[in-house]
Amino acid sequence: MELALLYSGGKDSSLAAHLLDRFYDVRCVTGSFGLTDDWEHAERAAAELGFPFERVDLDRDVAERAAETMVADGYPRNGIQRVHEHALETIAALDVDAIADGTRRDDRVPTVSRAQAQSLEDRNGIDYISPLSGFGRHAVDQLVDATFDVQQGPSEEVPKADYEDELRTLIADEYGEETVGDVFPDHDQTYVHGRND
Amino acid sequence: MELALLYSGGKDSSLAAHLLDRFYDVRCVTGSFGLTDDWEHAERAAAELGFPFERVDLDRDVAERAAETMVADGYPRNGIQRVHEHALETIAALDVDAIADGTRRDDRVPTVSRAQAQSLEDRNGIDYISPLSGFGRHAVDQLVDATFDVQQGPSEEVPKADYEDELRTLIADEYGEETVGDVFPDHDQTYVHGRND
Repeated sequence: MELALLYSGGKDSSLAAHLLDRFYDVRCVTGSFGLTDDWEHAERAAAELGFPFERVDLDRDVAERAAETMVADGYPRNGIQRVHEHALETIAALDVDAIADGTRRDDRVPTVSRAQAQSLEDRNGIDYISPLSGFGRHAVDQLVDATFDVQQGPSEEVPKADYEDELRTLIADEYGEETVGDVFPDHDQTYVHGRND
Repeated sequence: MELALLYSGGKDSSLAAHLLDRFYDVRCVTGSFGLTDDWEHAERAAAELGFPFERVDLDRDVAERAAETMVADGYPRNGIQRVHEHALETIAALDVDAIADGTRRDDRVPTVSRAQAQSLEDRNGIDYISPLSGFGRHAVDQLVDATFDVQQGPSEEVPKADYEDELRTLIADEYGEETVGDVFPDHDQTYVHGRND
């Protein structure tokens, strides 16, 4: 069974790939608005784990509207949620049996409700799987430590390929560099460099 | 890491055991009120999958109150939920690093909210994991078919060890056999007989 996993190169989506690999032919898929080359970090991380990789185009209009929302809100949550939903719809249209993402139980954003999940499945004739949604942060961190070689650090320094990088770039271009700092609080990101021995 | 999984011998908790086996030392644990020997079905299913098994005593008062609730409601949902929460609290007190159950995304009962999960974890110093909660019914059925040799049939004929058997027995004893049929609608159960080749 073919499965497209929304993939950033970070620890959560890498653990999701590892869990699903037992049952599905997992393809790591990174959405890009074409604003940066950050998706290449995800491609490299997928290669280090031995998974096939695909870059898919996301709709630039969605990025523009998400950036507007984020700047108006003063925080990224609603904009990130909108982009995540768009990315799921995009990979649901691929020729696959199932799609997945790396959302954890304790994630505040993005979240996919049971109703959204069933709608995605029914409209696209696929399964939607969030293999980490039954795991809390502590359990995920333990499984990641046991499985991967992980680099951790502030968002700006860890080369990851979530939507955040492109949205930061878009906001910097359209609203100025200082607005980026207003919207995105400092937080750590992770990047996976292959499996432990 | 030691993990106690609430186990019935059915397909969901068997798949949960299989998923968690990669990361944890999984012990299949079946709670029993001591009303029937149905827990032995779970013991046999665990042995067929090669997992260690443990029977734990549940509190008979909880069964009595659950039966009262179910008879008053005319359906089993709230009573089953109460018993599941009691069973999770019971295995959380075992000497383990984590506990788990086989609840699926589409289950209406039992359900464990994010707040309940975090409370369980914080009060007991363990992780609570529901490895199937990111999988819908269709995906679970596919993974089960790919993994196990499953028997399916009406509840009364499939030898499983969920709380339902004991609660049926308790209700039959205290309220009469016809009340059992009022509370429990007919539905199919499954029982796992080892792995596929």
